[in-house]
Amino acid sequence: MRTSIATVCLSGSLVPKLHACAEAGFDGVEIFEPDLVTAYESPEEIRTLADRLGLSLDLYQPFRDFEGVDEATFADNLRRAETKFQLMNRLGMDLVLVCSNVATATIDSDEVSARQLRALGELGASYGVRIAFEALAWGTYIDDYRRAWRIVERADHPNVGVCLDSFHILSRGHDPSDIEKIPGEKIFYLQLADAPALDMDVLSWSRHHRLFPGEGSFDLTGFLGHVLAAGYTGPLSLEVFNDVFRQTDVRRTAAHAHRSLVWLADQVRRPDTVPAGRPLTAVSPPEGFDFVELRGSGLDEADLVLEQLGFTFRGRHRTKPVRLWSSGRARVILNDQRGGEQPTHLAAFGLEVADASAALARARELDAPPVFRQTHAGEQDLPATASPDGTQILFSDKGPDPRWLDEFSYGDPERSDIARAIDHVNVTQRWQDFDEAVLFYQSVLGLDPEPAREVAGPRGLVRSQVMRTPDGCVRLPLNVEPQGEDHRTQHVAFSSDDVVGLARTARARGLSFLPVPDNYYDDLRARFGLDDAFLAELRSLDLLYDEDGAGGFVHFYTRTLGDVFFEFVERRGPYDGYGAADAPVRLAAQRATAR
Amino acid sequence: MRTSIATVCLSGSLVPKLHACAEAGFDGVEIFEPDLVTAYESPEEIRTLADRLGLSLDLYQPFRDFEGVDEATFADNLRRAETKFQLMNRLGMDLVLVCSNVATATIDSDEVSARQLRALGELGASYGVRIAFEALAWGTYIDDYRRAWRIVERADHPNVGVCLDSFHILSRGHDPSDIEKIPGEKIFYLQLADAPALDMDVLSWSRHHRLFPGEGSFDLTGFLGHVLAAGYTGPLSLEVFNDVFRQTDVRRTAAHAHRSLVWLADQVRRPDTVPAGRPLTAVSPPEGFDFVELRGSGLDEADLVLEQLGFTFRGRHRTKPVRLWSSGRARVILNDQRGGEQPTHLAAFGLEVADASAALARARELDAPPVFRQTHAGEQDLPATASPDGTQILFSDKGPDPRWLDEFSYGDPERSDIARAIDHVNVTQRWQDFDEAVLFYQSVLGLDPEPAREVAGPRGLVRSQVMRTPDGCVRLPLNVEPQGEDHRTQHVAFSSDDVVGLARTARARGLSFLPVPDNYYDDLRARFGLDDAFLAELRSLDLLYDEDGAGGFVHFYTRTLGDVFFEFVERRGPYDGYGAADAPVRLAAQRATAR
Repeated sequence: MRTSIATVCLSGSLVPKLHACAEAGFDGVEIFEPDLVTAYESPEEIRTLADRLGLSLDLYQPFRDFEGVDEATFADNLRRAETKFQLMNRLGMDLVLVCSNVATATIDSDEVSARQLRALGELGASYGVRIAFEALAWGTYIDDYRRAWRIVERADHPNVGVCLDSFHILSRGHDPSDIEKIPGEKIFYLQLADAPALDMDVLSWSRHHRLFPGEGSFDLTGFLGHVLAAGYTGPLSLEVFNDVFRQTDVRRTAAHAHRSLVWLADQVRRPDTVPAGRPLTAVSPPEGFDFVELRGSGLDEADLVLEQLGFTFRGRHRTKPVRLWSSGRARVILNDQRGGEQPTHLAAFGLEVADASAALARARELDAPPVFRQTHAGEQDLPATASPDGTQILFSDKGPDPRWLDEFSYGDPERSDIARAIDHVNVTQRWQDFDEAVLFYQSVLGLDPEPAREVAGPRGLVRSQVMRTPDGCVRLPLNVEPQGEDHRTQHVAFSSDDVVGLARTARARGLSFLPVPDNYYDDLRARFGLDDAFLAELRSLDLLYDEDGAGGFVHFYTRTLGDVFFEFVERRGPYDGYGAADAPVRLAAQRATAR
Repeated sequence: MRTSIATVCLSGSLVPKLHACAEAGFDGVEIFEPDLVTAYESPEEIRTLADRLGLSLDLYQPFRDFEGVDEATFADNLRRAETKFQLMNRLGMDLVLVCSNVATATIDSDEVSARQLRALGELGASYGVRIAFEALAWGTYIDDYRRAWRIVERADHPNVGVCLDSFHILSRGHDPSDIEKIPGEKIFYLQLADAPALDMDVLSWSRHHRLFPGEGSFDLTGFLGHVLAAGYTGPLSLEVFNDVFRQTDVRRTAAHAHRSLVWLADQVRRPDTVPAGRPLTAVSPPEGFDFVELRGSGLDEADLVLEQLGFTFRGRHRTKPVRLWSSGRARVILNDQRGGEQPTHLAAFGLEVADASAALARARELDAPPVFRQTHAGEQDLPATASPDGTQILFSDKGPDPRWLDEFSYGDPERSDIARAIDHVNVTQRWQDFDEAVLFYQSVLGLDPEPAREVAGPRGLVRSQVMRTPDGCVRLPLNVEPQGEDHRTQHVAFSSDDVVGLARTARARGLSFLPVPDNYYDDLRARFGLDDAFLAELRSLDLLYDEDGAGGFVHFYTRTLGDVFFEFVERRGPYDGYGAADAPVRLAAQRATAR
């Protein structure tokens, strides 16, 4: 199926928007009227440009407040419409979106609205223009797609059909299955938008918080299924009003938008919906973390901390300034950026998957950027891509010890009795990357979003969402960095079955723990009624503790090394969280101890 | 009355918060529990510090999910409470906030809740602690202050009273007049928060969007009147959860918060509420703009543009590198910052008021910063203050031509037939200053807020609110600058009764207009059905046009000079707007022509 996007989704002015849409791979665009009105290029110039870029101009939008009005207003509305039809002729466009009246409607009557739409259809026919009538969720009288269709049916004009917008239907909780009762050829257009589950007035929700498919809570796969079952064959188009997307790079947003449609079309799993003509390469969710890679200029402090945490030095890479530490299945690569002043940071993580080349193929099909890493003959070349925040992701085939381990030498062997692994990798996001990251991890890696939440910090509430596999073997908490922070801090959490013992040993080796305030332990006593001995042990070791209904969680943090820090966690019983209740303590302590 | 503030209103950690509250002039604070839990200082250290700063510790908050529970949970809740009472003894605090249960309540019964609160009061009495019970707007069973009072009345314990929070009452639309039925001595505490009129779930509204009094839509003056009528004599305290305030400078937010309470207490106009012991100096709204002042390094381009706009050069200042242009009552001072690279920007504006020294006195009483400007003997010394964004405001006594005009010489006399004035000054705000600016202009200058609105630009919707006098002689539209813009652009709009003629003359003199796209005029024809001759005239002169129900609006913009531009407006009939429908065109044109 063809893909399209409304220019209102993007930032800036019309010409750069058209370029970005073409580069991203869209087949067409909806022209949002203010984008044309504020452009210096004439309609003819826009038409020529779109043609040169291979973009069809699918929908002129919107024409507002047309029907349900008295005769004098109606006459003026027809006059207004005619000027727009003339404009559309200059643009070479043949489809206009007419929204249900929100401002001037005074007559609540199917008959009047149908008659007025029929007259509009008749006028449109003389200009070769078709009318796609849409029920806005906040229409004065017409706010349900089923009523809009009833009116279109009654208007009974070949130039009058409906436009369906997932937001207007799903935000109101209207049952989308009745879409299948509309003949496909009378669905003139389809607009798709996702949205987070918010309980607010639908107009503000629509204007500020729409998201691309896969980033919110709507069941768009089911929705699209109904539209296709009705026989719709027009483009899949995006209409997403979002404050973030309208402020950020137009080319990047267009690419991100296109990914959402490719993914959604594939989700429906109908051969006719696949934009590229073939389905996406199927992958199963990742089966574990292979490693994390830190980069920085000189990583001596990281060496020290890993040793204090009981990691084993596994050796140096045979050709690169890279060294490896491991503890059970938890592997940390230190990639020394000699010279320069690069702070220690999380540069990449590896994922064990059933089929690494399939994982890469899917990433490329979803326009995730390829990453080529320096390798020499005989070294394992792990397929790689980059996430929206720039962190590299490398895929390796699941199996016993990975082959790339053999590239390291002069180190010690891993002890066989260590039951440690990477529990989660916390990837802090810039505010403008967050939604894109949710889509990326869902569509490219096949991770599922946990419900979004907020954690409290010294600078207010931090938006947080965990992307994970159903079995929890890969977990990626995404947090939004607070406004005005000048750098992002990431962290890697390792699991252990004995965090208390591990902390005791690490302390004896001189590890610098993130110091936990005494007041925290007083509060812990109040919250959970812990016994004094356990509480004293937690306190003496700077350990944090949480419980959910199912189990307990003992964890601690190291001090921050550059832009990264480590955590060790012990999940007691089926505890499935991340110690969110302790986040305020961690954030405040990090702020207090920041260098 | 005493003033207090919850530490959760502010950014950062507890000790700097306490310092900021003391500096801002607060008498006390509420300790928000996570601020204590995340602090490294012991409760005893916090107590000593507060004492040294002259701050009373008024309320420990909050204790959650206490009542309406089964007996086993209740026993654990009493245990939790006792640890908090012990903590409060260490802090030297005697009042705790207990919120109505939102998580663990299973019993919807006044009798059970009253009995459990009575037991809590009895336990509290043994620690010298009193209980202030508050109905949260989203309490599971108890979400109305009237029910909370009924339960407290039934609990009938001297250590159990109510806490009233304006947000929880007004957000639900509950009638606050019933507060007067509560005996004043049973109102243990009062929390004040304003909020914008939002239609969203009350929990999110409360957690993210509360404002200080005078910044939102609640009638806090009326609310406070009811509380005082009930006989409440405790502190006026602020509890404002707001994402912006929690991210910005703690000292500035504390000062801003304190101003809101001083203003609110004065609004109530009861002698017993005035924190400083005497009412604020009363002022009437300003009666007009005296002048605007631009500063920059070299202002030759401004000279040229003002001349092209028909301004008269009135001369140079006798002692300063300052020159004056005027056109009727519109006066522009150019203050040349010789040397350096300062872009031309709006530095100050003058307001004509009934009593300039009273205006300054009020500003100082509201802790607005004083501004002292360089003057020499014999020169008029205008009282001045600075707005939150740094723009200086100078007050002059309303009268015939101001005396300071005589300080300029070697210029031309103003023509007597020019009916021009300053119509409005558009002061763009950084996102973190916006709410403070609304309060500032309301409390210090006595301007009224028009309803907030949003205008569309190439980077999305821009929040906009006009502060004005009832008669419109002073209007200050405040817009939020888009995220990521590196500088703010201000503008000054002058009024004329013949903008078409003025534009024609200016064009003949070579004025560089902000160019308006042709497509705009096609749309104008569609929208208003203007006649061709008028439309052609608008088009040829880059004029913009708007209508409201009452009249028309012709206006144009100059190109931007540094960080400022000019507008000329003609209000035809009782048109009372600012051409908001044209804002997208203006913003897009400015972006397109940015140097």
